[in-house]
Amino acid sequence: MNHDKLNPTTAIATVKNYLLDLQNRICQMLENENENENINKNINENINETQKENKNKNKNHFLEDQWQHTEGGGGITRILTSNAVIEKAGVNFSHIHGKQLPMAATIRKPELANAAFQAMGLSVVAHPLNPYAPTSHMNVRFILVEKTDGSIDWWFGGGFDLTPYFGFEEDCIHWHRMAKAACDPFGADIYPKLKQACDNYFFLKHRNEPRGIGGLFFDDLNVWGFDISFQFIQSVAEHFIKAYQPILARRKHPIYGQKERDFQLYRRGRYVEFNLLYDRGTLFGLQSGGRTESILMSLPPLVAWQYSSQSEVNNAEQILYNNFLSRKNWVSATRL
Amino acid sequence: MNHDKLNPTTAIATVKNYLLDLQNRICQMLENENENENINKNINENINETQKENKNKNKNHFLEDQWQHTEGGGGITRILTSNAVIEKAGVNFSHIHGKQLPMAATIRKPELANAAFQAMGLSVVAHPLNPYAPTSHMNVRFILVEKTDGSIDWWFGGGFDLTPYFGFEEDCIHWHRMAKAACDPFGADIYPKLKQACDNYFFLKHRNEPRGIGGLFFDDLNVWGFDISFQFIQSVAEHFIKAYQPILARRKHPIYGQKERDFQLYRRGRYVEFNLLYDRGTLFGLQSGGRTESILMSLPPLVAWQYSSQSEVNNAEQILYNNFLSRKNWVSATRL
Repeated sequence: MNHDKLNPTTAIATVKNYLLDLQNRICQMLENENENENINKNINENINETQKENKNKNKNHFLEDQWQHTEGGGGITRILTSNAVIEKAGVNFSHIHGKQLPMAATIRKPELANAAFQAMGLSVVAHPLNPYAPTSHMNVRFILVEKTDGSIDWWFGGGFDLTPYFGFEEDCIHWHRMAKAACDPFGADIYPKLKQACDNYFFLKHRNEPRGIGGLFFDDLNVWGFDISFQFIQSVAEHFIKAYQPILARRKHPIYGQKERDFQLYRRGRYVEFNLLYDRGTLFGLQSGGRTESILMSLPPLVAWQYSSQSEVNNAEQILYNNFLSRKNWVSATRL
Repeated sequence: MNHDKLNPTTAIATVKNYLLDLQNRICQMLENENENENINKNINENINETQKENKNKNKNHFLEDQWQHTEGGGGITRILTSNAVIEKAGVNFSHIHGKQLPMAATIRKPELANAAFQAMGLSVVAHPLNPYAPTSHMNVRFILVEKTDGSIDWWFGGGFDLTPYFGFEEDCIHWHRMAKAACDPFGADIYPKLKQACDNYFFLKHRNEPRGIGGLFFDDLNVWGFDISFQFIQSVAEHFIKAYQPILARRKHPIYGQKERDFQLYRRGRYVEFNLLYDRGTLFGLQSGGRTESILMSLPPLVAWQYSSQSEVNNAEQILYNNFLSRKNWVSATRL
């Protein structure tokens, strides 16, 4: 399946350099969106320059934790918590070594049980405060396995997906156009395949409900060889920034009320349910003795579960179900 | 393992009658605790009688949903949501039929794969509003399996456990004394065994942390035969009421602030993590195509996840860890 003569040390170093730079740039983008909002608010509130500066300082910087993994390696966790645009975001780099692939991985690759591995990745989850702004998620990862016969196996995985609370067609179209643009240089069949995989993956079986409007999802990527596969994950990551930033910039301003906030908190419950019940990355991390606080940074800052019988689905949810969570072909949507 | 000549129809009817009556009595107990608080508040607020009545009406009755299961059977879900003592409680009866035991059950009993089953139970979860009042959980269940050779297998399971946010020694001692009292007529070895099983079961591996202060947990109970096993689950259920009601009555009054509320919301995250990552009842229910809204009624009404590095564990959590989540022998604690 994988015919490269890969130098593991070089490959790891190459991917690591890229991911650390990507981490910086994504944090910068989110801080910029947060900062603009702070400045607007501060002007409106007519507070003085010192206060403005202090407010921005406190609110607008990712906190960083560097940590070590028990079996080797470690990570750099960055978390932004604010009352401005981003209620909570995590942008986490990790590079862990393990003696044995966890069950969440070997269930699909039984031949790799007992193999030592390195797993490196960058995970991004952003939960905006404004209910009109969607939650976004991006992940790129590189797994390198030393098989018991001494040979090397490796693969890339990743993707991005969007979870709106209140849908906007133009956002969905833009998101999927960026997803398609990330894939097109690698073949016309890639986007449809990865969109389908994303729809299939981010699905809550127990509710028969998609998590959001999808995007891209891929795993076990190595058929293209290392160089092209690595170019592809770069394309995915760069297009994530281009996909999310304009949507966040557009949706961070609208005024909302308690009703919209309540609906957002309620729908965020679905996000938690997916991540703890199904998400392979979360389960892989927890099973491999990963750093719990870094793995669960994906969970929303505030979540509500309210009992609702099927007959009481409210209007906002009906619109979300019918018009957005319906596996649409967003790229060829005709509205824009 | 099970030598009874059990009449399945009689056994099912007997257990069902008891559980439906138990459901009524537990709902009544929780409504009573809620009502007393409403009256106190209303007196303080000096509102008139009509307002008081309306307020109590809206706040103080379990809403009931009767539902059917796709493969047969169904349930009666009762949910109380209020701003008085109980922020959210679910008291759910279910009796479902299935063609095949779900994986969460057969992983422990591979010989029962492909066997048709009936599962009947009552589940109780109460999340009080006041952070000083602990969350409680109780479950009793009866499983009856028709094996492919035509013979019948059955067992009872259940237990109860308590999850304080702020601990009180006298509550923990009372809770465990009631747990012991439930078990003592059935043998002196029962309480220690079931307490141990409870501590082992309600444990968050990914945090190396107990969910709460425990109580009782048992499964696969049939060695005593049907009659004594059934008496035992009744003893467990009745002692749950005696264990929880006085604690709720004591802890529903104290005044608390935003700091205590925030800590409660944060610690409720652990409850969600346990139920979605580990709880066999939840996973059994979701895998067997159970009614999602009824199964997930156990999740708290409002939950916060905030990133916290190990070095920043706050004072309240340190006290909780050291003094309460430490698998104590509460029954022989000397304080009271």
